[in-house]
Amino acid sequence: MKDFVNVGLLGAGTVGGGVLKVLEKNAEKIAKEVGKPVRITKVLDRHVDRLKQEYGDKYIFTDNADEVLEDKDIDIIVELLGREHPAKEFIARAFANGKHVVTANKDVLAKFGAELFPLAHEHNCDFMFEASVCGGIPIIGPLKTSMAANQITSIMGIVNGTTNYMLSKMANEHLDYDEVLKEAQAKGYAESDPTADVGGLDAARKIVILASIAFNTRFNLDDVQVEGIESIEACDIKYATDLGYAVKLLAIAKNDPENGVSLRVNPTMIPLSHPLAGVNGVYNAVFVNGDAIGEAMFLGLGAGRLPTASSVCGDIIDIARNMQHQSTGRISCTCFEEKRLCPPDKMSAPAYIRLQVADKPGALAAIAAAFGAQNVSLRNVVQTNDVKSNKTEIVVITHSVSEANLQMALQILRVLPVVEAISCVIRVEDSHLA
Amino acid sequence: MKDFVNVGLLGAGTVGGGVLKVLEKNAEKIAKEVGKPVRITKVLDRHVDRLKQEYGDKYIFTDNADEVLEDKDIDIIVELLGREHPAKEFIARAFANGKHVVTANKDVLAKFGAELFPLAHEHNCDFMFEASVCGGIPIIGPLKTSMAANQITSIMGIVNGTTNYMLSKMANEHLDYDEVLKEAQAKGYAESDPTADVGGLDAARKIVILASIAFNTRFNLDDVQVEGIESIEACDIKYATDLGYAVKLLAIAKNDPENGVSLRVNPTMIPLSHPLAGVNGVYNAVFVNGDAIGEAMFLGLGAGRLPTASSVCGDIIDIARNMQHQSTGRISCTCFEEKRLCPPDKMSAPAYIRLQVADKPGALAAIAAAFGAQNVSLRNVVQTNDVKSNKTEIVVITHSVSEANLQMALQILRVLPVVEAISCVIRVEDSHLA
Repeated sequence: MKDFVNVGLLGAGTVGGGVLKVLEKNAEKIAKEVGKPVRITKVLDRHVDRLKQEYGDKYIFTDNADEVLEDKDIDIIVELLGREHPAKEFIARAFANGKHVVTANKDVLAKFGAELFPLAHEHNCDFMFEASVCGGIPIIGPLKTSMAANQITSIMGIVNGTTNYMLSKMANEHLDYDEVLKEAQAKGYAESDPTADVGGLDAARKIVILASIAFNTRFNLDDVQVEGIESIEACDIKYATDLGYAVKLLAIAKNDPENGVSLRVNPTMIPLSHPLAGVNGVYNAVFVNGDAIGEAMFLGLGAGRLPTASSVCGDIIDIARNMQHQSTGRISCTCFEEKRLCPPDKMSAPAYIRLQVADKPGALAAIAAAFGAQNVSLRNVVQTNDVKSNKTEIVVITHSVSEANLQMALQILRVLPVVEAISCVIRVEDSHLA
Repeated sequence: MKDFVNVGLLGAGTVGGGVLKVLEKNAEKIAKEVGKPVRITKVLDRHVDRLKQEYGDKYIFTDNADEVLEDKDIDIIVELLGREHPAKEFIARAFANGKHVVTANKDVLAKFGAELFPLAHEHNCDFMFEASVCGGIPIIGPLKTSMAANQITSIMGIVNGTTNYMLSKMANEHLDYDEVLKEAQAKGYAESDPTADVGGLDAARKIVILASIAFNTRFNLDDVQVEGIESIEACDIKYATDLGYAVKLLAIAKNDPENGVSLRVNPTMIPLSHPLAGVNGVYNAVFVNGDAIGEAMFLGLGAGRLPTASSVCGDIIDIARNMQHQSTGRISCTCFEEKRLCPPDKMSAPAYIRLQVADKPGALAAIAAAFGAQNVSLRNVVQTNDVKSNKTEIVVITHSVSEANLQMALQILRVLPVVEAISCVIRVEDSHLA
């Protein structure tokens, strides 16, 4: 047996730099946890000169992937390049060369997981990815181990820091979407092209990974119904608060024994008393329901150099322990179920709908009748009239309604003469708490 | 290799019944997670006849411990008897017979851990105890695995459901301690002798276990400074709320690099914006600070039949996987550090103090001077006068103060002529958030 567990790092950017730091700072502790020292030997990065200046000769820096992937002394490859290519190809080559892989790359996992996991298995390699969802929060590990005896019934997560920062800011400071987006961009919390965050794609990738682990099967991005936060206005958050709700962008996976698994990302109203409602700013959190555990929530920092490195290094330790005990593949085959997706129109939940209406007698009656005709019953109705602008707004929250019936009702409302516009539709999650 | 992993259950009470249920209901899933079916074969319980009636011949029931502990076909012993004896002796015998052990018994762990862990190691047995702290919440597992690369700096937990229910009730319904205790007893949330809960002993046992794992060493009950919630009145919670704080019974373990580890259980004021402040009712939560992860919180149901069984069964799966991969003892030696305790008088935190004073000119000046003389500076002062009772109350929150200086200041205040009584002292945790 070798004296060290040797790690090759692909990508020495923000998170990669964090991994170098954690493995060095806590080297002694990690060696005791594993039973053998763990060290990074080679680092692939295109900024070789800059890195040599920063780190000296502590590590071998190279811009040639072969030097890392073909190095027979390297046991574990840590892939932190991001994006789909060439990360996916590098991971596949690592397995082909018998190397274990740790990645934080949700793009690769959500798109090529179904291809890469069997490859890892075939070459008797471990493939771990705690850092790919919610940065520092331990959630993949607990789902695979502590909660493994449960049938998971649902997962709801605040898994995108940008949108949570924006919605928290809109709620606390009564600001509008555009204003908050600009500020988030100025502070570096939102990218100059914020589409993937505000449109829900980033969250969709994460729920694909979470649901695959939770429901022991493999989903992909096409399985997720995605809706972003772009249509949320400050007044929607105000109405929500008045009605006892917070508005969050939730990634939701539910296993309905009758209709199958539904995966969706959408702005969601949750009761202010729900543990997720208080998760603000840059925090992420994942709320799990299981048939034994009942309810559990995992909260922490969803991004950032050191939190993400914490998860990467936890995975490295896990693999190193497997190497020490010749137990590679100890938890490999967790995706053993056939996937059964719920048809989108069968998903059901209450809905919040904000309408602009003509200020005429009988407006509310016409709208209520339209809902009733589609079998949609209402549990809250708020009508307001702004004297200055002479605009009338009606806000309703329905009882639980199937997507099919909701869409039909919205279609009819759109052509009602009294309805000037449907300004916002938000799903409501009322799932009962302990 | 055998076709089954065979489990012997000691104690078929509330949690034991939950374990029987989970292992039966989710047998198929668990077999896939492990790679082999897991089954309970024998159950030790004194109510043999009643259990036979309930379960028929699914399991062999016995009131003779030898029949379980000496059964060569049993691989794992699940100890759910509670209390120190004979649980401790049974666990020791299980190890002597080469059997792995899962327990939920915090009394045994907090008192005899230092004796039992080496015994498990000597016989190459796994010893797991996720259920011993906070029922269903995965926290021991994540500390040992996902967070293993961190130096943990502090752990703060709401780890006792009874007191959290009581304090939540006092806060939300402005009720007094005695009233709430009576109601909690009537509802079964508090025992007829509530001392261990309200006095902090139950929480102390749990922080001993959490801190031992988090700081990789072994503590025992004597290392914890314990204070209960008995002196908290409704008005203290009211003052706290007005000043922006919630009052929780926290179990706190901090690793101060200079002074060592401090372990304490005491009523604590935490900012309302802190994630622990919103953890109400029967929820438990553990908030962890680590040098890489930053902050993380684990929330869930701290007790109950199925949540606790979820943790027990997760441990069974973990051991069964080790058996499948011959990797027993894969994570065994996590307590490798020398323990260094912080002297109690060096612990420091801000403090809330409520005083009854004589309504005389100069009262506040005399009190402020007494604090000043002990180098205790004040950051909040509230003075109120109840016209009806003609009682004057002064509430102060100090800046961070060492226990030694605080006690000295309290001693001087007690003998000041203007001070009629010191009604309540509560520590404040302001630790900064992300």
